[in-house]
Amino acid sequence: MPQPAAPARHFASDNYAGMCPEVLAAMTRADASGHEPAYGDDRWTQIVCDRIRELFQTDCEIFFVFNGTAANALALAALTQPYHSILAHALAHIETDECGAPEFFSNGAKLLLADGPDGKLTPDAIAAKVTARSDVHYPKPEVVSLTQATEVGTLYSVAELRAIAAMAKRHDLKVHMDGARFANAVAALGVHPSEITWRAGVDVLCFGGTKNGLAVGEAVVFFKKEQARDFAHRVKQAGQLCSKMRFISAPWLGLLDDDVWLRNAGHANAMAARLHSAIRDLAGVEIMFPPQANAVFARLPKPAIERLWAQGWKFYDFIGAGGCRFMCAWDTTPEVVDRFAADIAAAVSAAATG
Amino acid sequence: MPQPAAPARHFASDNYAGMCPEVLAAMTRADASGHEPAYGDDRWTQIVCDRIRELFQTDCEIFFVFNGTAANALALAALTQPYHSILAHALAHIETDECGAPEFFSNGAKLLLADGPDGKLTPDAIAAKVTARSDVHYPKPEVVSLTQATEVGTLYSVAELRAIAAMAKRHDLKVHMDGARFANAVAALGVHPSEITWRAGVDVLCFGGTKNGLAVGEAVVFFKKEQARDFAHRVKQAGQLCSKMRFISAPWLGLLDDDVWLRNAGHANAMAARLHSAIRDLAGVEIMFPPQANAVFARLPKPAIERLWAQGWKFYDFIGAGGCRFMCAWDTTPEVVDRFAADIAAAVSAAATG
Amino acid sequence: MPQPAAPARHFASDNYAGMCPEVLAAMTRADASGHEPAYGDDRWTQIVCDRIRELFQTDCEIFFVFNGTAANALALAALTQPYHSILAHALAHIETDECGAPEFFSNGAKLLLADGPDGKLTPDAIAAKVTARSDVHYPKPEVVSLTQATEVGTLYSVAELRAIAAMAKRHDLKVHMDGARFANAVAALGVHPSEITWRAGVDVLCFGGTKNGLAVGEAVVFFKKEQARDFAHRVKQAGQLCSKMRFISAPWLGLLDDDVWLRNAGHANAMAARLHSAIRDLAGVEIMFPPQANAVFARLPKPAIERLWAQGWKFYDFIGAGGCRFMCAWDTTPEVVDRFAADIAAAVSAAATG
Amino acid sequence: MPQPAAPARHFASDNYAGMCPEVLAAMTRADASGHEPAYGDDRWTQIVCDRIRELFQTDCEIFFVFNGTAANALALAALTQPYHSILAHALAHIETDECGAPEFFSNGAKLLLADGPDGKLTPDAIAAKVTARSDVHYPKPEVVSLTQATEVGTLYSVAELRAIAAMAKRHDLKVHMDGARFANAVAALGVHPSEITWRAGVDVLCFGGTKNGLAVGEAVVFFKKEQARDFAHRVKQAGQLCSKMRFISAPWLGLLDDDVWLRNAGHANAMAARLHSAIRDLAGVEIMFPPQANAVFARLPKPAIERLWAQGWKFYDFIGAGGCRFMCAWDTTPEVVDRFAADIAAAVSAAATG
Repeated sequence: MPQPAAPARHFASDNYAGMCPEVLAAMTRADASGHEPAYGDDRWTQIVCDRIRELFQTDCEIFFVFNGTAANALALAALTQPYHSILAHALAHIETDECGAPEFFSNGAKLLLADGPDGKLTPDAIAAKVTARSDVHYPKPEVVSLTQATEVGTLYSVAELRAIAAMAKRHDLKVHMDGARFANAVAALGVHPSEITWRAGVDVLCFGGTKNGLAVGEAVVFFKKEQARDFAHRVKQAGQLCSKMRFISAPWLGLLDDDVWLRNAGHANAMAARLHSAIRDLAGVEIMFPPQANAVFARLPKPAIERLWAQGWKFYDFIGAGGCRFMCAWDTTPEVVDRFAADIAAAVSAAATG
Repeated sequence: MPQPAAPARHFASDNYAGMCPEVLAAMTRADASGHEPAYGDDRWTQIVCDRIRELFQTDCEIFFVFNGTAANALALAALTQPYHSILAHALAHIETDECGAPEFFSNGAKLLLADGPDGKLTPDAIAAKVTARSDVHYPKPEVVSLTQATEVGTLYSVAELRAIAAMAKRHDLKVHMDGARFANAVAALGVHPSEITWRAGVDVLCFGGTKNGLAVGEAVVFFKKEQARDFAHRVKQAGQLCSKMRFISAPWLGLLDDDVWLRNAGHANAMAARLHSAIRDLAGVEIMFPPQANAVFARLPKPAIERLWAQGWKFYDFIGAGGCRFMCAWDTTPEVVDRFAADIAAAVSAAATG
Repeated sequence: MPQPAAPARHFASDNYAGMCPEVLAAMTRADASGHEPAYGDDRWTQIVCDRIRELFQTDCEIFFVFNGTAANALALAALTQPYHSILAHALAHIETDECGAPEFFSNGAKLLLADGPDGKLTPDAIAAKVTARSDVHYPKPEVVSLTQATEVGTLYSVAELRAIAAMAKRHDLKVHMDGARFANAVAALGVHPSEITWRAGVDVLCFGGTKNGLAVGEAVVFFKKEQARDFAHRVKQAGQLCSKMRFISAPWLGLLDDDVWLRNAGHANAMAARLHSAIRDLAGVEIMFPPQANAVFARLPKPAIERLWAQGWKFYDFIGAGGCRFMCAWDTTPEVVDRFAADIAAAVSAAATG
Repeated sequence: MPQPAAPARHFASDNYAGMCPEVLAAMTRADASGHEPAYGDDRWTQIVCDRIRELFQTDCEIFFVFNGTAANALALAALTQPYHSILAHALAHIETDECGAPEFFSNGAKLLLADGPDGKLTPDAIAAKVTARSDVHYPKPEVVSLTQATEVGTLYSVAELRAIAAMAKRHDLKVHMDGARFANAVAALGVHPSEITWRAGVDVLCFGGTKNGLAVGEAVVFFKKEQARDFAHRVKQAGQLCSKMRFISAPWLGLLDDDVWLRNAGHANAMAARLHSAIRDLAGVEIMFPPQANAVFARLPKPAIERLWAQGWKFYDFIGAGGCRFMCAWDTTPEVVDRFAADIAAAVSAAATG
């Protein structure tokens, strides 16, 4: 049995972190309740669903699934037929990192990729894609998928979301939001969660819990009940219905009570800002996107990257060409950020003189 | 927040139970290890995989997924094409309780149902089904799927498994084992796990952890490496790759260390035997299947069933006609069994005189 | 190049026959029209669609596909989601002879099989199946599929259809009709085509052309326009959109003009009746189903069957046990029927004395 | 019934043409042979398969399907799993004009798009795409798909094909060829059909018949028998098994006898060359790709395009920006080409002075 190491803190992904203490406590408490009905008929699941409804101030339908790939793919499958297409940014996670899950669960729907600055779709880009083809030889556009916060650590403002949703409605498209880092967006924008979801025109939100401090689990939130028709059957058939459901629902209480979810997200955001401040002016460092959530994307000289990796720091390079992603988690400490920033400074300096 | 009630013990399903203490401890320990690489590149996952290889005394391939529906459906999808068929008993869980998941993940493979006594397939039943059709207008048989322990609490002996596997090989069929209650089978048969899997001719085992004391998670064990080709991609695309993998792998250590898995299963089996002894001779109770694992199936008068439900006991009725399933878990206590048996006795007595 | 043999006439299937002369003429005429827009934008296709609308006296949506497997599977896919089930008779072609096409095109929908006399579903059998389960662990019933004429050569009366459709509506089920031999049903019942389709409560008809005298092609007829939403895209994606569409649409004119379709069907029905009359009283022949359309099902001694096959007659045995299917086509002649009947008489006589 | 118009000749697509006379004759002859066994067990189908084997000088497996979408999608599905990717040119028909059929039939395989001059993939472009990612979060490359002749009327030389196939083998990729206009390629290159298929390293060819003069139908030719395993079941399940098979197999004799297929293709190629010669030097006309097969792609001023359309000429514009596709068929006449060229000349002249 491995001994717990002195907790390392990396910048590879917010899913390198474990559970936050409140989540572990909630899971332990749910475990202590003895026998509970399975498949979501337990007390905890009902409580958490009601809490999420209160959070969004609307009578939405909520389903818990095991991970973000499933949340996104099942939500998109519920909104499409196999001959439809889904508009997404070329950098969207559903395009680049889900191994074709949306295509698989929808049985063939195609992703229609658009570009846009800072990893964000624009109403014009959507309109251009939607109107380019209307014949039966090409999949029919049916959904716009947005990521909030985006894959490059940026944010859609309320106004941007409203403009996109308006364009979507004009073309009879539904709006899906990949919210793997939804908490980071809410914390950073300082808005009510409803303001960047249903009040802005979002139909379905995949509300991420894992990166925010859960062990396992995301919530699919349908703001239009008719779109959730039979979704419980879809979840079951897709192998996403947890039998001991309380263990993926109850931990949400650890996040929702006392706004831990926002505190966790706000902290991660602050750590990214701290890292950004420390490195943005270094010679040899080029910031790639405005760091609006919990990530910093920066271009570094290749020798600097390799030196950092050799020192044991873990982080991903990103779309080649020296781009790096530095991701902060709920448990990233200022000390580690400062240590990492210092190592970056030394690395780029060494690369310059090397 | 709900207060943990005095732990109730029901007989509805072994998935009404929570985590066993060793599992919770293992999960807590894994959580304490700080940042860990995601998607299975952590230390815990490697350790658990090696432990399972040791357990089976062979160099098998192991994949962790979230639940039994996914384990079975993905394993079957790996063994089939959409135009294939899967031979299974008419009572098999993959037929009756997975909402078409095998058909969905395989993109259309059909279940070919056979009957057989005590919920078990026989070599002859398999041969009859396989040879009935060989034209292109009907799906081609490709896999035999067995459940061990079966859905009605019975067991395949080593000899029965070997005979089935031999027949399968004769017809060029692969052998899949749904082992949601594999631990109960091993404990009850008193055999080495390899004896009822690869040494008997089983190709793939879905090794159940949830009903044995985990919160979430099953292991898919491929005994033939070539059948596991690219299975990691399949798991990812299917939304079954856990990002914080340690939380579904490390808990297995809680089961595997000190043979907790066998102790849990053996205890559940013993509780079923105790219940069986207490009720089998009651007038008005008809035992439906030999209780070889952790379940007792009994026919009771309808008023007796309703009285028990009204008293707060939870259990499922089963294929109508007064059949009941009483399922014991790792945490079922002798006291609860005795209390339940007494209530059954009173209920059937009241029904007789009522 | 093989020389055309003296035209043999078999009783294996109505798809052993070629094109009827009017169909070949229509195809030749469409060919002579030079360049025509592809994918259904030609003149012929529009004309045929209008003719079918007139035929059914309603503004239905019509799509041409290549064969019956595709017609049924695509229609059913349009009416279902992967987690739905389709109620069908255990002898239904979609269950027994389409190699899992409905499961494939729907991405996993399950067939829920019911029995009923003479190959026909009954309202009670439907109700029993639909109400048996309502949990998420089993596919949700969504469609009733009927075959008219049935796979065993029987017919649903108008009253029977209305009763089934009423039961379907009560349970919120859609009604699909496999009409591979729809013409035979209309001809035999002597009703208007609308009487056994939309006026009786049928939502979608797969209107068979191949067995009625076409070379290739069936029409999917949606009586509710909203159910045909985007169906053109579905047809295209499924590889069923004919580029030179006129060659599968124009031949329908050969059937529809001068009621050739009814004449062809009526003739085939009459030949079956003739065969039935000639053999029903033979010792050793047991008629299995009332011969209401263009097939006779009869049980014969095994030696008799083998003698007939040895003489070169082609026909299928059917669900084992000496059952034979004798199918008549638009081009089956009285002489061949009489010759076949005589050979059957001799064969059963020889078997009796052999 | 519409009267056959004076045969118009358009440049929209080679599928605007009807059957060539030899094909109609072959179909008529097959029709005259009376009852034939269904589903490919007829005499004609066996003969045609043997003829195709002779043509390719190898013992390949041949399957007839209804159209090119199905041929490509089923062949690709046979070569992939849902989590695989298919490398194709961004202009490939499987990407741009099959409404997601490859994704649908493969249940989710993704197209990995590469660019290359003149609509052709290059070994380097393939290598770059294949080596860009190897993690489980992205579909695993498994097949290279080529189109010969390409969608922009160009050709892969034997050397180019060999180089691509060599690169494919290096990366363990299979090679699929979309041969909707394979005949045009063979005729233009003046090579033996085997030289640009299996001898060059192609695994599967979708051999187009429709654009070459058939009414309906393509042949899927597997040069490696093991890759065709169970493909007959796949064809059946996919709704692509023709019951009256002779009507899609026998017409191939009309093409194969006396090399009609090469004569048809050569003629279409010659007509494209004639058109090219007539317009390439016109001021206002810009040829977009070398016209190596039966199409000419040219950029024209928008008013010229609209004038030609207004005159009744039918042709497609192509990837916007004034690009036009002029496609010649087996029945395109020199007179029509000359008339069209003259109208183009007048149109661009008018546009220049307008």
